[in-house]
Amino acid sequence: MSEQRRTGASQSLGEGEKSGSFERDTRYITDRITVDGRDGWPVEAGRYRLVVSRACPWASRTVIVRRLLGLESAISMGICGPTHDERSWTFDLDPGGVDPVLGYERLQQAFFARFPDYPRGITVPAMVDIPTGGVVTNDYKQMDIDLETQWTAHLRDGAPDLYPEKYRDEIEEVDKIVYPEINNGVYRCGFATAQDAYEKAFDRLFTAMDTISERLSKQRYLVGDTITEADIRLFTTLVRFDPVYHNHFKCNLRKLSEMPVLWAYARDLFQTPGFGDTVDFVHIKQHYYEVHTSINPTQIVPAGPDLTNWWDAHHREELGGRPFGDGTPPPPVQPDEQVPDGHGAPRS
Amino acid sequence: MSEQRRTGASQSLGEGEKSGSFERDTRYITDRITVDGRDGWPVEAGRYRLVVSRACPWASRTVIVRRLLGLESAISMGICGPTHDERSWTFDLDPGGVDPVLGYERLQQAFFARFPDYPRGITVPAMVDIPTGGVVTNDYKQMDIDLETQWTAHLRDGAPDLYPEKYRDEIEEVDKIVYPEINNGVYRCGFATAQDAYEKAFDRLFTAMDTISERLSKQRYLVGDTITEADIRLFTTLVRFDPVYHNHFKCNLRKLSEMPVLWAYARDLFQTPGFGDTVDFVHIKQHYYEVHTSINPTQIVPAGPDLTNWWDAHHREELGGRPFGDGTPPPPVQPDEQVPDGHGAPRS
Repeated sequence: MSEQRRTGASQSLGEGEKSGSFERDTRYITDRITVDGRDGWPVEAGRYRLVVSRACPWASRTVIVRRLLGLESAISMGICGPTHDERSWTFDLDPGGVDPVLGYERLQQAFFARFPDYPRGITVPAMVDIPTGGVVTNDYKQMDIDLETQWTAHLRDGAPDLYPEKYRDEIEEVDKIVYPEINNGVYRCGFATAQDAYEKAFDRLFTAMDTISERLSKQRYLVGDTITEADIRLFTTLVRFDPVYHNHFKCNLRKLSEMPVLWAYARDLFQTPGFGDTVDFVHIKQHYYEVHTSINPTQIVPAGPDLTNWWDAHHREELGGRPFGDGTPPPPVQPDEQVPDGHGAPRS
Repeated sequence: MSEQRRTGASQSLGEGEKSGSFERDTRYITDRITVDGRDGWPVEAGRYRLVVSRACPWASRTVIVRRLLGLESAISMGICGPTHDERSWTFDLDPGGVDPVLGYERLQQAFFARFPDYPRGITVPAMVDIPTGGVVTNDYKQMDIDLETQWTAHLRDGAPDLYPEKYRDEIEEVDKIVYPEINNGVYRCGFATAQDAYEKAFDRLFTAMDTISERLSKQRYLVGDTITEADIRLFTTLVRFDPVYHNHFKCNLRKLSEMPVLWAYARDLFQTPGFGDTVDFVHIKQHYYEVHTSINPTQIVPAGPDLTNWWDAHHREELGGRPFGDGTPPPPVQPDEQVPDGHGAPRS
């Protein structure tokens, strides 16, 4: 169960428990892929394969960043299925259940290729060195920043600056609320094993939601007047709020759709190329409800909520803002990376 | 687990399972208390004790009927605690854990006093004969009708006619949707053990909600222009919808608060004396989330949803209607039967 909860939490590499509270293990493989190759991993088109699951909020950040920046041809992508057993993510969506580039059935093989006795959870996103088949890094936060700052030679024309130098301090300042209180806060609600630990987590989560809502009531995006890394980090939690966290993690003071500012903000991003077109609600729901048997032993996946409202008008453009700054929206998703028919939010 | 689910479902006296579907055992003790005493149980003030739990939707109907009719002095009431083990409901709220009139710790004792080998679930509401200590009936539906039609000599001044002769056929006609599709429909969603059985139950539930919503969009009450037994039957499910069924039973296409007609209808009743003043949200949530370990093994009780909106204006009076017909609202709840402070919907 502990193992299951650990791998189920995607990014959690194991967790300790103290008086019923959920604690995320944040020890990652911290090698970086950089222009100067200081860790032995230079930026090089075609060398690395990004392994993700569309179910996972942390991996979904990287999927969005890669697409907004137009890095598809420089860094290929392998997509794991939404559910997994205690040995973690598998390539069951691929023909024969094998990733066509890495030749693996399980992401675990890439971790073991690097560290034969790798002791922690097998998590996505993971950046894999194709020649050796070993994982370079699964440090999702640094990975995104490096895509945004080290891969500049490979960006598409019109790629936005998602981590502008002048806003980096502010982006990380906002993250001091968004990461612990919201991104990880929903997990602290869902994986609490004692009533009082859950209630503390619940109060912290909704206090933070109010704080961020207040900030977003006056500006279109979290930092500056364009989409940045800060918005991507918040978006992948918000898009899972009503389909999963509200019910499965008992984050039920109110639905996202009952928080007008955050709901309009989330819809604005969802309707922006690069966001909603990466979201697979079927994978998201299957993952959480089928993997976490410690909190959903029947593994039944709820048929709701109605998702057609993701396409409702948001009116956030009235706040101004330039979504892509001096850049442009990304082109349509390339055919082999499209979310399957029926897995996105249906237009009513 | 089967036993736990059985007793957890209050009125279900055991259930069969067929292809993952939930099936309610509806075999009750069907003796009736009547004016003519045909079953050996004549109407007689002071002779019977109604045993309920405020957690249970079926028992809550009887609580409302008794209060609207002003039968408090004719039929006393024992209130069980919200949670129970496999031996079912207990009098743990009473001093010493003993019902002061019956002298029992467990409702089970009243069933065994009547039938020493009683083989089915111990359910509320139960009407107990005080002299013998045995259960007369746990047939919730007939019990309410008999309160409405057999106890006429003991009603308060201004008691409404909740089961008017000219509307009985229509009340039972509406019940052909409300009972199987909604009252029991939420249980069929929540206790399904297979995905396809759940999805069928889910579709049936929300189809019925739409049908009833359409009916209530044009008239204030379900039948006629006054509150009747039909409204009481629907109300006790609706009031549990967002606090319990939406999350715990995966009835999550949308919240009650996202269904404008049904939500206004439910608030209208809630704000009517005799309805909301009998509702104990703390007991309701504790019961479902703590008893049903087969679907909520952590037994953590969600802190949400926000319930202050139960007091929002409903504007249903614009549809006309005379809540109590030629009668009057009941007086305030007598002190010893008030829902504890903090257990109702807080006024924002």
